[in-house]
Amino acid sequence: VAAEVSDRAWLQAMLDFESALATACARLELIPAEAASAIAAACRAEDFDVAQIGREAAHSGNPAIPMLAQLRARLPSEVAGEVHRGATSQDVIDTAAMLVARRALTPLLADATAAARACATLAASHRDTLMLGRTLLQQAVPTSFGLKAAGWLAGIVRARREVALTCERQIALQFGGAAGNLASLGEAALPAAALMAADLDLPLPAVPWHAERTRPVVLVDALGALAGALGKVAGDVALLAQGEVAEVRSGGGSSSAMPHKRNPVPALLVRACAQRLPGLVATMHASLVAEHERAAGGWHAEWETFSDALRLSGSACAWGARMLEGLEVDPERMGLNLELAGEGVMGESVTVALAARLGVARARELVEAALSCGRGLRAAAADVLTPEELEAALSPASCLPNARALVDRALAEYGDGW
Amino acid sequence: VAAEVSDRAWLQAMLDFESALATACARLELIPAEAASAIAAACRAEDFDVAQIGREAAHSGNPAIPMLAQLRARLPSEVAGEVHRGATSQDVIDTAAMLVARRALTPLLADATAAARACATLAASHRDTLMLGRTLLQQAVPTSFGLKAAGWLAGIVRARREVALTCERQIALQFGGAAGNLASLGEAALPAAALMAADLDLPLPAVPWHAERTRPVVLVDALGALAGALGKVAGDVALLAQGEVAEVRSGGGSSSAMPHKRNPVPALLVRACAQRLPGLVATMHASLVAEHERAAGGWHAEWETFSDALRLSGSACAWGARMLEGLEVDPERMGLNLELAGEGVMGESVTVALAARLGVARARELVEAALSCGRGLRAAAADVLTPEELEAALSPASCLPNARALVDRALAEYGDGW
Amino acid sequence: VAAEVSDRAWLQAMLDFESALATACARLELIPAEAASAIAAACRAEDFDVAQIGREAAHSGNPAIPMLAQLRARLPSEVAGEVHRGATSQDVIDTAAMLVARRALTPLLADATAAARACATLAASHRDTLMLGRTLLQQAVPTSFGLKAAGWLAGIVRARREVALTCERQIALQFGGAAGNLASLGEAALPAAALMAADLDLPLPAVPWHAERTRPVVLVDALGALAGALGKVAGDVALLAQGEVAEVRSGGGSSSAMPHKRNPVPALLVRACAQRLPGLVATMHASLVAEHERAAGGWHAEWETFSDALRLSGSACAWGARMLEGLEVDPERMGLNLELAGEGVMGESVTVALAARLGVARARELVEAALSCGRGLRAAAADVLTPEELEAALSPASCLPNARALVDRALAEYGDGW
Amino acid sequence: VAAEVSDRAWLQAMLDFESALATACARLELIPAEAASAIAAACRAEDFDVAQIGREAAHSGNPAIPMLAQLRARLPSEVAGEVHRGATSQDVIDTAAMLVARRALTPLLADATAAARACATLAASHRDTLMLGRTLLQQAVPTSFGLKAAGWLAGIVRARREVALTCERQIALQFGGAAGNLASLGEAALPAAALMAADLDLPLPAVPWHAERTRPVVLVDALGALAGALGKVAGDVALLAQGEVAEVRSGGGSSSAMPHKRNPVPALLVRACAQRLPGLVATMHASLVAEHERAAGGWHAEWETFSDALRLSGSACAWGARMLEGLEVDPERMGLNLELAGEGVMGESVTVALAARLGVARARELVEAALSCGRGLRAAAADVLTPEELEAALSPASCLPNARALVDRALAEYGDGW
Repeated sequence: VAAEVSDRAWLQAMLDFESALATACARLELIPAEAASAIAAACRAEDFDVAQIGREAAHSGNPAIPMLAQLRARLPSEVAGEVHRGATSQDVIDTAAMLVARRALTPLLADATAAARACATLAASHRDTLMLGRTLLQQAVPTSFGLKAAGWLAGIVRARREVALTCERQIALQFGGAAGNLASLGEAALPAAALMAADLDLPLPAVPWHAERTRPVVLVDALGALAGALGKVAGDVALLAQGEVAEVRSGGGSSSAMPHKRNPVPALLVRACAQRLPGLVATMHASLVAEHERAAGGWHAEWETFSDALRLSGSACAWGARMLEGLEVDPERMGLNLELAGEGVMGESVTVALAARLGVARARELVEAALSCGRGLRAAAADVLTPEELEAALSPASCLPNARALVDRALAEYGDGW
Repeated sequence: VAAEVSDRAWLQAMLDFESALATACARLELIPAEAASAIAAACRAEDFDVAQIGREAAHSGNPAIPMLAQLRARLPSEVAGEVHRGATSQDVIDTAAMLVARRALTPLLADATAAARACATLAASHRDTLMLGRTLLQQAVPTSFGLKAAGWLAGIVRARREVALTCERQIALQFGGAAGNLASLGEAALPAAALMAADLDLPLPAVPWHAERTRPVVLVDALGALAGALGKVAGDVALLAQGEVAEVRSGGGSSSAMPHKRNPVPALLVRACAQRLPGLVATMHASLVAEHERAAGGWHAEWETFSDALRLSGSACAWGARMLEGLEVDPERMGLNLELAGEGVMGESVTVALAARLGVARARELVEAALSCGRGLRAAAADVLTPEELEAALSPASCLPNARALVDRALAEYGDGW
Repeated sequence: VAAEVSDRAWLQAMLDFESALATACARLELIPAEAASAIAAACRAEDFDVAQIGREAAHSGNPAIPMLAQLRARLPSEVAGEVHRGATSQDVIDTAAMLVARRALTPLLADATAAARACATLAASHRDTLMLGRTLLQQAVPTSFGLKAAGWLAGIVRARREVALTCERQIALQFGGAAGNLASLGEAALPAAALMAADLDLPLPAVPWHAERTRPVVLVDALGALAGALGKVAGDVALLAQGEVAEVRSGGGSSSAMPHKRNPVPALLVRACAQRLPGLVATMHASLVAEHERAAGGWHAEWETFSDALRLSGSACAWGARMLEGLEVDPERMGLNLELAGEGVMGESVTVALAARLGVARARELVEAALSCGRGLRAAAADVLTPEELEAALSPASCLPNARALVDRALAEYGDGW
Repeated sequence: VAAEVSDRAWLQAMLDFESALATACARLELIPAEAASAIAAACRAEDFDVAQIGREAAHSGNPAIPMLAQLRARLPSEVAGEVHRGATSQDVIDTAAMLVARRALTPLLADATAAARACATLAASHRDTLMLGRTLLQQAVPTSFGLKAAGWLAGIVRARREVALTCERQIALQFGGAAGNLASLGEAALPAAALMAADLDLPLPAVPWHAERTRPVVLVDALGALAGALGKVAGDVALLAQGEVAEVRSGGGSSSAMPHKRNPVPALLVRACAQRLPGLVATMHASLVAEHERAAGGWHAEWETFSDALRLSGSACAWGARMLEGLEVDPERMGLNLELAGEGVMGESVTVALAARLGVARARELVEAALSCGRGLRAAAADVLTPEELEAALSPASCLPNARALVDRALAEYGDGW
């Protein structure tokens, strides 16, 4: 997503606004058609000096002013005057932000889709792969890798849907003029806004949102949730890839010091991106409290933050998809780790079986005693259960029927939503 | 919302989970019907020692464990064993969080509705009230107070809708057992989950979300947006209530030192709440990266943060409604401030009028010269414009037609969504 | 630290301010000595209704106003008027915050000291305990547990020192009156401030800091660093306590579902606390931008945030000390894991040895080939190195001399600073 | 500070590390002197392809690896092997971060000094300039602009000192090798570290801090405090520059829509920078919890965050100095606003005067009645006070003696510390 949020991409989006504005003004006969054509033809970012706009932006307080200066300088003077009719800097920048976001969301959502698809494949193909469930970073009870992947899938699907829905509901044209009331275009204002919205393929909002910043904030919230959903997967992958666990292998980054080492680079990068979103989300939320008709600083704080949020969540999706698509799963090691964990992980299962005969309290006591005194669950339970019951209670596979059903539910939900 | 998120409210929600679980187990004949009845009857928070549960929660790592101890102690021993069948602490606490949230959202959304209604009333009744638009904390161009209130309305409506939609999509039962695969209830697990969901009136999710934290995170995001939308209004109110501006009056807090002072207490409190949400939102996002089947610390970090987010955004809504309902608007002072601002605020308008004759470049030059040399806009423009054009260009009321149209659009959108 | 930041503790600190103020006023003959005695005698938090003050605080905008009302109600009317002379609510609350902080820092720093001491003991007693160093969550090269503990120690020592230095530099009396210029006490103002500072044992700042919020912000920054330093240790402990790693054991929290499980509760709680500080730190920083002579909301947002930061970092220190003091280290398992990691972890070491003969490039090639083709490092290196060189290069213990030297440096630094 | 934190600046800092390492190795006869010279000569950032390093950094997980590849490619093969002896990527990047910080802090601290100096000048020259004190955004009581500027000064001085002290205490060499124990350089390791520290003019820490991230975190905390201290000033400037207040004028940014408007651009930019620091500070704090010997993602999340923090706080200082140096203060308008505020702002003062005769309770009643019934303070107080007492009580200038004393204290503190 880096290209879609580059300075050049922002500049092109600002120029797209000016082009659409001039075209709309010509349609409404506010400016000559030839002027609009000339403006539209000049609105090509590759002809501009992006770096200079950046340098001058600080002095004028925003990048729209030097952009306009360069644009006007590229036009005959009688046309230059027709640029930016009825608009203010904020209209240009806010609309550009929305265009940048929509353009960035195309690859971002595609990568999220790829990540989800890879999760779904893992969930489906490992429905029967037993592994240790781990809670609070401790070995807990058996589960399946399919269900673990189904949980990853559910998170990515949920967060991706938030992004997509938010995009639908929040992306919109901003066009309000100096104080948001479209005063200077008179009767032509609302028609011009409608034409621009159509031209730029952006929804026309009920009212300009120059000082009502919910739209970009809520969008970044959803990006943060998506980066976090992928960060959760990456964290699990990194933990499973630990040498002592070795249940998955991921990536192949080399080390500058250690020739033998295989670093799980995609997982690291996803985690690094995910770790930056909370701070960016907080900064966006702080910008909600905007003074009057344009915030005195809070609005300016949004620009890079918004770009960073798109870029980093986009990177999380791209690396997340690559991580999941390249994930090597080792079912045998999963089985081995489960076995090595010992019968303690079946303690809950045996307790349940014993409780049917002895009541929960005595069953729990018996199991705790068996586990702590070293007598062992099997021996302790053999006094109470039939051999068949005993085998069932001690079998990790007894978790599979429900785990499979849950995997199927997750896959069905995934199938529905895509 | 303080009562809805109190320790007692959390405890009752946890007990509601246990009651629903026992009832479901009895319906599925996993436990005797009388045991379920006894459990359900014992699940009354007022009979428990809330403070003790709080103290013991630290030592066991979560409040479910001491809650269960107290609950079991209130039951005959043969019934005590039937409590909490197939569940784990996280099921209790996560489901309780959802119940707490839903119960807190009732007053919260009602207060947000009241705040929106007050905004709509202000927007409608001040459609024709001219005032200064202010950008970057500077006087800019005329606008109407009706449109300002319509902008507030749009923000509250948008954010409130996010909360309501999020609530619909994200609130759900959590029931997964020790590692989220419902292993220990066997075939009865999914039916039990369905019964509990129905009993607690919570949607049944496709899969347990113990380690997929998007749900509470996205909910807090929306609460943050709502608090911010109200914070924006409160900030504007506090600025408009400054002695030198005096366009509104709000609240009537007294001062411990100054007998004459009237502090805009509701606005202050809304801003204070709004200022805390960004940090809470960031903390929630950080919890997304949860290890394996239960996060080792990140989950625990959510509890108070989630409560604080509900309480503070709830407080922002309650005080926001009170602030807006009690707002005294002074249209005369708005008019006076507009007049005192001088003809400079009509500079854009006059430029537009002149540009129709002279082109934009010369019009802009003429206006800038007139404003800087002291000759004045009226005199400068009189050489070019007809008297009627001149009056129109110098009249702040020329912004009203578009402002009114935008107010109507905001009110229509508000009307649609409620 | 919970008790030191309770509502009652805040109330007592506010009352201590009022008592010191009355005493100073009496010393300067602004009020009768008997009035001051009566006020001082009435300033006992246990006689007040804390909950009522909390409820009324919202309506007046701060808790000082209802506190003053209760205090005055407890005094004869002629004495009641002498309370709070020349002060404003902010003086009471800010000074109370400083008293609360200083009282909370006593146990907090003691717990941090205990945690550091436990680290130092671990570092010293495990100077020769070899274990795997792990980078990017992958097995890397051998190191010692002593050095790992020395790194923990360095972090805790550094952060604790920040807290202590910050406390020295930032904790101070706040006394400025209505707008921070001490106007209403006339010539007695600065002498009164000096007397109060002495009485409360707080430094007298050059100027009141009512609208200059660096002091509490910087203090919370340091608390965040300390919680984070302990969070780092807790994270390592939780990772080392994983069943597959098993190099340490910590805590003994039970599980509501799994009888066999031993949850590392202290480590979890430390991590949970550490995870909340970043958001609190961000909220405090946002309060720096305070409007004029008292912030309109930002100040109010500090109160609970400041308390939470003290409470949670205090809890991180308390649980961190307990975690470290109770840590069971398993040097044998560390050795076993190192052995099981295979000769790959010696790859860097062998490369260095080979490079002395072959140059770095060829040495690296040879090692990579040996590790990837399965021939093995020993066989490949045996062609080049003498048997003694080979053993040294393949021996994990070759890292110990430098590791020991670093441990000693850390212990010396620790010794210096305490 | 943008140049000091550019990609090129980071690259040069990384190359400085390699150069110092090669030089140290040659001094210790680990590598030939000619090799060291060749390496040192090749370590010039202007010869490298910065953009390519950026692109490749993602794939290898960090920028040190492609930097090393380019550096080695520029050297004869026998020299190439001598590059980076005993070091790991983190050594390069962490030490580079410290060099970048120190280089950026030179202009940053100079700008902060300039800002403080400008505040001191304002404080000294406006010791007698009366103005309204404003609390909670409401007119409160008279104060002086000198004292207001002294408060700004105290904040900048305090925060700047934090940055300078932090810089002294926290900036240090990082050199630890693969897992932080300097294993691969054997006996030469600590001497090499000492030589590098001397060469780069960086303190040698007791132990490597690769996984103990307090240093960069605490540094960013201080930068956040400084940006916030300037943000507070900028906020006050923007509020005082409001058209209705007009007590200061600042900047002269033009508007793309409004020819008459003079935007306080420096103040806006300072506020925008200040608003981004809290989120960056939070992200840094989150990185404290680093896994084992190198964080799996958290470390990577620091790099841009650290640069952004330096750049934005540097920008806040630069624009803050410009804002303060160019600030036009209007003492007459301050006086006028004070007069227009009415006698209510003298209410506290009159209450104090009356209380000496009537007791506080009756004095307060009398003043409140006078202010609310319209009789006026003067008339009401004239019954009780002598004419001289009355004039004194109603004179805003009565606040000046204490205000002047406080200004002097602030200037003295400023003088001491610089």
